[in-house]
Parts: sequence; structure tokens; C-alpha cells
Amino acid sequence: MKNKGVLIVISGFAGSGKGTITKELIKRYDNYRVSVSATTRKPRPMEENGKDYFFVSREEFERMIRENELLEYTEYVGNYYGTPKKYVEKMLNEGKDVILEIEYIGAFNAKKAFNEAVLIFVTPPSVNEVYLRLKGRNTESEEVILKRIKRGQEEAAIIDKYDYVIVNDDIETAIEDIHNTIKCSKFSSVRNGEFVAKLKNEFDEFLKNY
Amino acid sequence: MKNKGVLIVISGFAGSGKGTITKELIKRYDNYRVSVSATTRKPRPMEENGKDYFFVSREEFERMIRENELLEYTEYVGNYYGTPKKYVEKMLNEGKDVILEIEYIGAFNAKKAFNEAVLIFVTPPSVNEVYLRLKGRNTESEEVILKRIKRGQEEAAIIDKYDYVIVNDDIETAIEDIHNTIKCSKFSSVRNGEFVAKLKNEFDEFLKNY
Repeated sequence: MKNKGVLIVISGFAGSGKGTITKELIKRYDNYRVSVSATTRKPRPMEENGKDYFFVSREEFERMIRENELLEYTEYVGNYYGTPKKYVEKMLNEGKDVILEIEYIGAFNAKKAFNEAVLIFVTPPSVNEVYLRLKGRNTESEEVILKRIKRGQEEAAIIDKYDYVIVNDDIETAIEDIHNTIKCSKFSSVRNGEFVAKLKNEFDEFLKNY
Repeated sequence: MKNKGVLIVISGFAGSGKGTITKELIKRYDNYRVSVSATTRKPRPMEENGKDYFFVSREEFERMIRENELLEYTEYVGNYYGTPKKYVEKMLNEGKDVILEIEYIGAFNAKKAFNEAVLIFVTPPSVNEVYLRLKGRNTESEEVILKRIKRGQEEAAIIDKYDYVIVNDDIETAIEDIHNTIKCSKFSSVRNGEFVAKLKNEFDEFLKNY
């Protein structure tokens, strides 16, 4: 029997390194696949359709909602973001662990749809570090940085709804910590209902025939 | 800040190898300590007081219950079994991960007393394997084996209340799986409430002073 893969949600503060971690997991280990979100927002320069996002019209997105083609979706600052169900289910059935790198509303919707989903929140060791990393990018205005810190404050209030919190102090350690956490989550009894049912059945049969 | 250790409960079917796994974890890794249970049952030949169990009188055990000195206790076939609280708390405070190798009633009582406890159930891959391992010991009568299989049937019904199920097919793999699972359980958000509170506070302070 091929075991189904794990649906993994990775969220984190701006500057947490979640994007790098996801890319490295995909690069290093064959068991991971990343899900590409659909969105109605306009592509930014350098963004590729089908790689960064599936860029779709509002009409198309609403059709996907109606026809239950999305695992989760959320509306954020006037645009829809969502996870097409088909690819995720196909990969999980092939035993691949599928990573969704999404925001918390989507994360909790994914958990509702998939009780076995593993929710991981990535954070730098301190808020000062969040600030320094954003500042260090040299691409964002103080105003944008402030907006992200405010968003962080909002996110900090719901971290306890995630299954795991990974501190990204050292990126190598964080990658391996997340990889191991996903591996071990496969031992959770929630994920082993079928095996336990098999054992129960074997005990019954054994004692019947004894 | 020294992180508190994890309270680990290891249970499993007769023949699951849980005893060997516990011994190996203690031998291989410095982070583990094993808790010695107190019991009112008579010592068997070869059993050492303070090593296998603390052998105490019924009066003494009932005094420990009354004076809240036990983390969990249970009565089984006319004898009391329990975990003295003092040693466990001391070790956890020193950052050691404390293993209790106990039966399921005690396991659930430990979880009630210590919400952060990690409950692990160890099982051979099949009931036939349970039978073969018991048989292979050559020390137990068919009658005792049958009693253990019946007990196994009862245990199988409550495995889903454990956090993790580890299949001991290969003992080396099982030891490492349990070791990693304990390591990763330290990332659970339940265990990181203090760190999350620190972050929340830092966001508040940062935005106040911005």
C-alpha cells in the first residue's frame, strides 16, 4: 500500500525565510511538491503564469469556487487567492508531500478541508530580526516595512492555531527541522487510522479463530 | 533560558519492543531520563528496588496518593502502580526528556496532569507478529499468551488517543523514529506558548515606539 502524502501549510512573517525554505525542501528532497496558487491579482514583473501563480480572471476564479475546484481560497485586498484541488489531490495520492505556502486565513481553511494537514509557522527569533531582515532587503520603503510589521502583529495573535512553530535563526537548521517535523507528523495517530483499524480487525480475527 | 524537557509516555502491546526501545534511548542519548514507577506488587526474582520499581506497601502508596505525590496512578489486578511526581518534575525542569513506560490508563492520567505530555504507542506490524514474538520468548504458556493477546485487543481500541503510533518492524528504525518524533514534538505550538507570548509583546513594543 502506498501511503498518502502529507498536506503541509507553511506560513510565516515577512522576512521569516519561508520562501527559501520551501524552495530548498523541493530542491533537496524528492518527496515534496509545491502547489501553485490561483489568483485574480495582476502578475508582477518577472512573475510567470503557472509557476508563481495561475493568473485567472475574476469570472474564472468564481467559476472555480462554484464548481468546488478549490481546496481553500481567501479574498485579500480585493483579490482572490486559492489552491486548485486537483493537483494537490493527485500528488497526495501518489504519496508526495504537498507544500502550500499561504497566509493564515487560507491555512485555516485548508485545515478545515483537510483535517490531516500539518500547519507550520516560520518565524525569525525576534521582532527586531524581522525588522532587520526587511530593512536589509533594501527594496522596501519604511512605509511598506511598517505595514508588514503591523501584519506580523496580527499574525502573532494566531500562531497558536498552527501545529508547529519553527524558529528560523539558522536557515540550514530551519530546513532540517521542518523536514524532520513533516517526516514525524506521519506517525501521528490521526494519520494512521487505517493501520489501527487493520490491527483491530486482526485481533478480532485471531481471537475468533484461536 | 533552559527549555523544559518533554514528558514522554511509551506504551505498546506485549512484544512491541517498548522496553528495549526505552533502554536504547537512555543509553544512546543524554537528553533522556526514565521514571521509575512505584508499585504495591511484590518484586519478582531479579527485580531491583529503585531500579525496576519502588516497591512500597499499600499504606505507603495510599499516603502518596493522599499527599499528591503521584503524577498518575492506576490500580491493576489488585495492585497500585504510579509515577512519583518529584523526580519527573526535577528532571523536566533541568531540560531532560522523561520517559514513562506505562499502561494506557496511566498514560491518559499523565496526559490529564500534563497536557504537554507526548503519548507514543509502539506496535509490531501485525497481530500475527505480536503472537510470534510472545511465542518466541519461550517463557510464556499459551494461556498467558492468550491473555496478552486479549489485552492487546483492548489496547487496540484506544490507540487513537495516543499522539503517535510507531511500528516496530525494525528495531533500529523504531528507535530513531521515536527519537526524532520526540525532538520534533518540541516544535509544537502547544509547547511554545512562552516564545509566542514574547513575540506578541515585541510586536506591541515595536509599534508603540515606532
